[in-house]
Amino acid sequence: MSEEDVRTRLQRLEDIERIRDLISEYAYRLDMNDTAGLAALFTSDCSVIYGPGFGADGIEAYRKTLEGVGSYFAATSHHVSNIKVSFETTTAANVRSTLYAWHRYRKERPDGILLGQYHDLVVRQDSQWLFKKRELRTTGVKDFHTKPEHQLPIGRHT
Amino acid sequence: MSEEDVRTRLQRLEDIERIRDLISEYAYRLDMNDTAGLAALFTSDCSVIYGPGFGADGIEAYRKTLEGVGSYFAATSHHVSNIKVSFETTTAANVRSTLYAWHRYRKERPDGILLGQYHDLVVRQDSQWLFKKRELRTTGVKDFHTKPEHQLPIGRHT
Amino acid sequence: MSEEDVRTRLQRLEDIERIRDLISEYAYRLDMNDTAGLAALFTSDCSVIYGPGFGADGIEAYRKTLEGVGSYFAATSHHVSNIKVSFETTTAANVRSTLYAWHRYRKERPDGILLGQYHDLVVRQDSQWLFKKRELRTTGVKDFHTKPEHQLPIGRHT
Repeated sequence: MSEEDVRTRLQRLEDIERIRDLISEYAYRLDMNDTAGLAALFTSDCSVIYGPGFGADGIEAYRKTLEGVGSYFAATSHHVSNIKVSFETTTAANVRSTLYAWHRYRKERPDGILLGQYHDLVVRQDSQWLFKKRELRTTGVKDFHTKPEHQLPIGRHT
Repeated sequence: MSEEDVRTRLQRLEDIERIRDLISEYAYRLDMNDTAGLAALFTSDCSVIYGPGFGADGIEAYRKTLEGVGSYFAATSHHVSNIKVSFETTTAANVRSTLYAWHRYRKERPDGILLGQYHDLVVRQDSQWLFKKRELRTTGVKDFHTKPEHQLPIGRHT
Repeated sequence: MSEEDVRTRLQRLEDIERIRDLISEYAYRLDMNDTAGLAALFTSDCSVIYGPGFGADGIEAYRKTLEGVGSYFAATSHHVSNIKVSFETTTAANVRSTLYAWHRYRKERPDGILLGQYHDLVVRQDSQWLFKKRELRTTGVKDFHTKPEHQLPIGRHT
């Protein structure tokens, strides 16, 4: 085993850790309603897709979509598991994960639950991993505020 | 630290990542109702135990149990966390994890929730990690379709 | 890359795995109502904070708080995700994670759900990672038994 091999394998393992940290940081910043912290996790040319015709192209558009979070939700809790990282290159990876998201509304209505999947493209820029593309697909919801036609399905086999 | 040590330690860390990927892949393939993809995660001599007298011995029997998934559930979402890998040898490990599973039925009835634990034996065959044994134990359920006598308890101390 | 570097980086990756195992072990021992196993995960001078004025200083006080778990709950299921480890030194790290906790009471009342965050300080003692401080912050609850004034808020921006 060459020194080159060791370096490459260590770097990959460390990158997986950092990518998991990125996924965790997104959930944390969202639940804290820290919109500046959230936006800092995305590339300037990012693409964020929450559903058909519902999302943001570029960091400025994404920042605008985040403005409503604080006034719409009294609290949220995002729980991400089943994280699977697949490298495309040493600086780009596809990441798939599963989301359980709980939402308490400011309006008087039952808590909303969303069960879904994140499908991400993450890239390393200046030694930091960032979201270049984040797509949310919806497995199911309960008492959730978005309409079915605004939800991207996971494409389950029937 | 010898080169041998470095190689062994790197391999172990990479194996943990691949085992976590296996656990995640199972949840994903199940939620996608991709039964062929699911079966490919098990050894030919696998043992799958969902409850007392309810499970499958061998991959052919397991394939048969999967046939009903698509017609019974309109959607499912499996969320696995608390994954702990304990190696028995370099090619076999016990894995314990915690499951939150949401089920939407095709029949008109409330969504079913199962909270449980997976107790797995995974093995490496031709550089791929596979389930040799997967046992589901049930911590609790809500509106779930299986009867208590078909659920294996976690054995909580009383 | 020196041998020293390789050793340091391998050690860090292994430490992250062990710290994740510690987090998982806590959830497992709690759900099994294995109070001796739980206490063994804490340092003798540990500090455990469940809410304002509700917690334990030192392992003996913590053991006492655990005594009621078995008689109060018929079952619990703790699901921890979004684990992020930040090292302070080679033997101390801050860990942040997200909790979904389900509780079935012995009394006749609906299952209680708590959504929250763990903020931990973990330390390595004699090659074993232990909790020195564990603080639970509450994002939201449903049908839960503790009063709001006994819950530590996550400090969400408004």
